[in-house]
Amino acid sequence: MTDRTAGDPAAAREAGALDEALARIAPLDVAAMAAAATYLDRLTKPPGSLGRLETLLIELAGITGRMDAPVARRTVVVAAADHGVVRQGVSAYPSDVTAQMVANFLAGGAAINALAAAAGADVVVVDAGVATRVPDVPDRPAVSGDRHRARRLVRARIREGTADMTEGPAMSRADALTAIGVGLDLVAELRQTGLDLVGVGEMGIGNTTAASALTAVLSGSPAGAVTGRGTGIDDATQRRKIATIERAIEVNRPDPMDPVGVLAAVGGLEVAVLVGIIVGAAAARIPVVLDGFITGAAALVAAGLDVNLAPRLIASHRSVEPGHAVILERLGRDPLLDLDLRLGEGTGAAVAMGLIAAAVQARDEMATFESAAISGPLDT
Amino acid sequence: MTDRTAGDPAAAREAGALDEALARIAPLDVAAMAAAATYLDRLTKPPGSLGRLETLLIELAGITGRMDAPVARRTVVVAAADHGVVRQGVSAYPSDVTAQMVANFLAGGAAINALAAAAGADVVVVDAGVATRVPDVPDRPAVSGDRHRARRLVRARIREGTADMTEGPAMSRADALTAIGVGLDLVAELRQTGLDLVGVGEMGIGNTTAASALTAVLSGSPAGAVTGRGTGIDDATQRRKIATIERAIEVNRPDPMDPVGVLAAVGGLEVAVLVGIIVGAAAARIPVVLDGFITGAAALVAAGLDVNLAPRLIASHRSVEPGHAVILERLGRDPLLDLDLRLGEGTGAAVAMGLIAAAVQARDEMATFESAAISGPLDT
Repeated sequence: MTDRTAGDPAAAREAGALDEALARIAPLDVAAMAAAATYLDRLTKPPGSLGRLETLLIELAGITGRMDAPVARRTVVVAAADHGVVRQGVSAYPSDVTAQMVANFLAGGAAINALAAAAGADVVVVDAGVATRVPDVPDRPAVSGDRHRARRLVRARIREGTADMTEGPAMSRADALTAIGVGLDLVAELRQTGLDLVGVGEMGIGNTTAASALTAVLSGSPAGAVTGRGTGIDDATQRRKIATIERAIEVNRPDPMDPVGVLAAVGGLEVAVLVGIIVGAAAARIPVVLDGFITGAAALVAAGLDVNLAPRLIASHRSVEPGHAVILERLGRDPLLDLDLRLGEGTGAAVAMGLIAAAVQARDEMATFESAAISGPLDT
Repeated sequence: MTDRTAGDPAAAREAGALDEALARIAPLDVAAMAAAATYLDRLTKPPGSLGRLETLLIELAGITGRMDAPVARRTVVVAAADHGVVRQGVSAYPSDVTAQMVANFLAGGAAINALAAAAGADVVVVDAGVATRVPDVPDRPAVSGDRHRARRLVRARIREGTADMTEGPAMSRADALTAIGVGLDLVAELRQTGLDLVGVGEMGIGNTTAASALTAVLSGSPAGAVTGRGTGIDDATQRRKIATIERAIEVNRPDPMDPVGVLAAVGGLEVAVLVGIIVGAAAARIPVVLDGFITGAAALVAAGLDVNLAPRLIASHRSVEPGHAVILERLGRDPLLDLDLRLGEGTGAAVAMGLIAAAVQARDEMATFESAAISGPLDT
């Protein structure tokens, strides 16, 4: 991609960091997967009888290269930003809600706080470009024995939200690369204190419009096929949303073979940070738990950058947004849950992280047929 | 049903306890459901955006009569027994495995131990008729701060497993009623120390044969349509299993309008205990989390006894056993999970109990739009 940043030294430097991370993304470790599968068959249950939980454990082995892949240190990263395209009247809520919800995340009152706590995960919020200033809130450290978890804000406001994508690119290529760099750096920082499993979430009024536009371009689908009702818009607003996306694509003419260019043209700052988180975790062999439609769009951008990335993603759930099914199909990922969620914030990822932790606990605590002296199958 | 126990005073007494419990089963509390729905719309998320988790919370309100239905005290009851029909060569495993697995449950080495611990649930094992004597194992009390949970054995061995259902009834009506009484009594006992949510599980080599026979009779389906591969039998064994069920139904000619009679004819002792657990919990307004096919068959028996019972059940998952889909359809229950599980023991129920606890945590910890000062939807 460096050719695309010629003449912009800052962008070229950020592109270099991205290229370096992409070069570290390896295929799944097939030997670790085989070892995990063999071990699971020794546990006191009929072979394969834990179904999707067993295939999940085999995938974790492939991603981490360890048949005993740990998941003890879990974090949900929630990236937030605003979207210039809301001027076109595509959302049911005003832009102010982005900052208000970030404040709610930091106060511990949002769905993601409760669901991450239930899953034993910390919450890190990234301000990637919230239009209204987010008030200063002290970090909340983890307290031993507390049912709540640590939460904190990373200030990385690249600009005051994106520009209106119907009038030109949502952001410059340099801004997109800077935001990706924020995600890469955050993964590196979280790894210092330990990170076994990362969930991704987002908040940004208007961001289903960006996600639909990204999905339309990257999957070659008509905008109408990948645009839903977001937080709950009516028919007229949905028609306007589709027309807005069509106009944004017409104005920007993004090249589907250049995922970073598509991201800059019709994406979002929080989506770009998530691309960095996903690439950084994949490079570090840390399993990434996706949430719904917007994190899926970030994954679609990331998967376009390296062929070995998609198998490193765990799809938590199937959102009600029609574009999400298209994304899961393109990524080749089968979601763990189907609960008609459409909240975002990382809520589906958090619920799935609880499920993943339970599967790992079964793997680690179950007896084997030998250790428990249990008879195997009859000869038939 | 008392007319059916005429001339048998013990059976008449047990039938009286059952009738009394059935009389206490009320329709769902619609006012509590409406109050819960209204409250969920005040929380900081778009209305309905937590999907199935919100309908679950509304169901919990209807079952318990409380919009703030508690789920803090959770127990999985695993009923175990052997089946005379295994002589017909219908299972992949020998009967010895039932007692061996009960010992494994009590030692904490089975999948249900790890998954119940992950869900914060105690495990109570009921020996309802294990053919081999289960060794004495001391109760394991809950230890504060321990990631494991309490576990113990209830000895209620009514007989050394059922008789071979191809030669007559699996058990007498009196034995079936006694086993149901064990379940009713256990719910009453668990309520003394507190019980908010009960999961049901089972262990019994041969019990998918009993569950298929129960499902065939109670749903009016051909045996071939509701008989699967259990713990993993081959084609020839599956054909023998279907023929065995057909012969058992032919020999016993159970009356589908008499669920206890069907249970005695082609059921199992552990299934009968679970019928008692389900009826007892429903009468006490305690939500019951079903597991897979065998607990579903117990629920089908129980639902046949009172029209208000089925809506009080939470279906945890959709098993790969073909008869399970028939049961869920008859019960009108939509499962929370679809993970291709086919282990039993209560494993699917335990996983769902973790999900339920997470949903309740979201309900209880989330801020409202008012309390967090967040803007509502735009006027459109």
